Amino acid sequence: MYEYVHGGNIYDADGLPAQGVLDFSANINPLGIPGEVRKAIRNAIPDCVNYPDSQCRLLRKRLGETLGIRPEWIYCGNGASEILFRLAYVAQAKRTLVLAPTFADYGRAAAAAGSKVDYHQLRREDGFRVTGSLLRSVTKRTGLVVLCNPNNPTGLLADRTLLTAILDKCRANGTLCVVDECFLDFVPHAEQYTLLGLTEQYENLVVLKAFTKTYALPGIRLGYCVTSNTALLDALYLTGPDWNVSTLAQAAGVAALSVPSYLEEARQLLATERKYLTGQLRQLDCVVYDGTADYLFFYASRDPGWADLLRQRGILIRDCSNYHGLAPGYYRIAVKQRRDNRRLIKEMKEITKHVCTFTSRID
Amino acid sequence: MYEYVHGGNIYDADGLPAQGVLDFSANINPLGIPGEVRKAIRNAIPDCVNYPDSQCRLLRKRLGETLGIRPEWIYCGNGASEILFRLAYVAQAKRTLVLAPTFADYGRAAAAAGSKVDYHQLRREDGFRVTGSLLRSVTKRTGLVVLCNPNNPTGLLADRTLLTAILDKCRANGTLCVVDECFLDFVPHAEQYTLLGLTEQYENLVVLKAFTKTYALPGIRLGYCVTSNTALLDALYLTGPDWNVSTLAQAAGVAALSVPSYLEEARQLLATERKYLTGQLRQLDCVVYDGTADYLFFYASRDPGWADLLRQRGILIRDCSNYHGLAPGYYRIAVKQRRDNRRLIKEMKEITKHVCTFTSRID
Repeated sequence: MYEYVHGGNIYDADGLPAQGVLDFSANINPLGIPGEVRKAIRNAIPDCVNYPDSQCRLLRKRLGETLGIRPEWIYCGNGASEILFRLAYVAQAKRTLVLAPTFADYGRAAAAAGSKVDYHQLRREDGFRVTGSLLRSVTKRTGLVVLCNPNNPTGLLADRTLLTAILDKCRANGTLCVVDECFLDFVPHAEQYTLLGLTEQYENLVVLKAFTKTYALPGIRLGYCVTSNTALLDALYLTGPDWNVSTLAQAAGVAALSVPSYLEEARQLLATERKYLTGQLRQLDCVVYDGTADYLFFYASRDPGWADLLRQRGILIRDCSNYHGLAPGYYRIAVKQRRDNRRLIKEMKEITKHVCTFTSRID
Repeated sequence: MYEYVHGGNIYDADGLPAQGVLDFSANINPLGIPGEVRKAIRNAIPDCVNYPDSQCRLLRKRLGETLGIRPEWIYCGNGASEILFRLAYVAQAKRTLVLAPTFADYGRAAAAAGSKVDYHQLRREDGFRVTGSLLRSVTKRTGLVVLCNPNNPTGLLADRTLLTAILDKCRANGTLCVVDECFLDFVPHAEQYTLLGLTEQYENLVVLKAFTKTYALPGIRLGYCVTSNTALLDALYLTGPDWNVSTLAQAAGVAALSVPSYLEEARQLLATERKYLTGQLRQLDCVVYDGTADYLFFYASRDPGWADLLRQRGILIRDCSNYHGLAPGYYRIAVKQRRDNRRLIKEMKEITKHVCTFTSRID
């Protein structure tokens, strides 16, 4: 039976957006949709009378210029999640290796394509960091590996030397390796972490990215991937519908790439607000992990049931207990603008007070 | 190697829309996007900061009211073409039966899902009508049948009694039967032809529809299907990404369903213009089939190479020679507003004159 397992569900049972809800459960750029992008979408509405370009040629050209990558190595999709499902169908892996915890769709896409899913458990003792033991989990039977850097929900970065060793082993074994860098644009000195520059050298590497979080556009559906594997690119086109990226998404993407200073501004804001939230959460007895992106992962040493109690106060956070490999008590919150972050902390403090009072009353 | 095989390609090699092109190669409602729908898309742009409702609940509720169908029997997708690929993956058919000629994506989706594709050849002698012989082509080995009513590119309707007989045979054989009614909204007395009312009785029936042609929205990507088969519906959700229908597409769909008199106006315009174009094309030695939708299929008894010659004059028509089962000389044109139709005929007449003059010169 189908069940929605992600954050960002702001809708009521009738599909109407709940009014006045503050959503910390989806990790969207806190600066919101750039004005230039909203304008580009508006201007493209009349063009919806035509089919979109099935090959997203203009968008891929602009992406190529921005990333320093050949446009023909880029494939665009209806959000990174569509590309994941296409990749899994194309890979035809008998076994797929994913981290635990990590974004649920890697396993879901693999399972949909008939693959068995192997989980490499990240350990609490290691602070949920990816360690060298991951290399041992990649075996000759692994047809597909999907990693996330920085990982979701932890926000932690993997070591580049380790990733390169994994790529080498995957190449030797004929294993396809997908690295999801959807949150990397928020990370300081991202150029030191991205594997985009290795796509030419490793034909078995696919780097996955999206406009969703980077440009606060989850509703528009736009993602892309980069690989130098031309047979794979061809298969991606053939494994699903032609017109998968809407006219409006293509226009939004082209406009987003030329918005000046937006990403730098976001990175600066996030650095300040990660620090603020981390400090505040620690005061609330939370173990906060050193997230690098636009979200923070924490464990509530004293957990009154944060997600439910905050929802009653109009705030959504991501209860991570349905992540494979996580016990209850773990949460993920987006890092937002100061006024929103302050509101979250204020409500958490009030809940703590209320819960304490209530507890002492029972005592 | 991926190759675009459909009409509606208005883009140049750089992905820029060619200026001033008149597109008869895509079958879009000639009334264009309703103003109310454009407005609804515009108003929904700020909502793109949130993920779309993964279950399209509001849109399915409105669709249910409009069609007289339970909302839970409706599944929405990123255009009907996405649903086709999902259906093929879910069906896991060893063999898929499609008409020839028909829309290419039925066979493409089946092949992508690993199915062999069997073609039921429609015969020129039968005027490309679907006849009782189709029933014999459905065998015990057929896992999936995909039909199109009215068929694309012919515009011809299948007999309801025959379709019911096919549904019965498919049910007895455990065969899934998809009937694409994407163009049926343009057909006079469509209620006599639609199989929507049979979805309750036949769990093996899926009726496929889209907003693409009906509301002139190919760029927005919005389609849906109806089936009472709850296991199939569940599988559709699980076989691809969650957020397949964008926020803007959902808003467009909701708005489109409450535009008054738009479809009736389109049907009246099309009836008049089909007659006009049919008469004019016959004067140009074309065999025009009795299309019922927003396009006309014809055979050029004298064919100067219509598609290329018209393209040189800024008009795109659909050369049907790449349809499985069709010889060169067949074309499909959209039925548009009178000023556009007149322009097409004028250019065709001038080409004829030019070709004749040229020919006589050579003589």
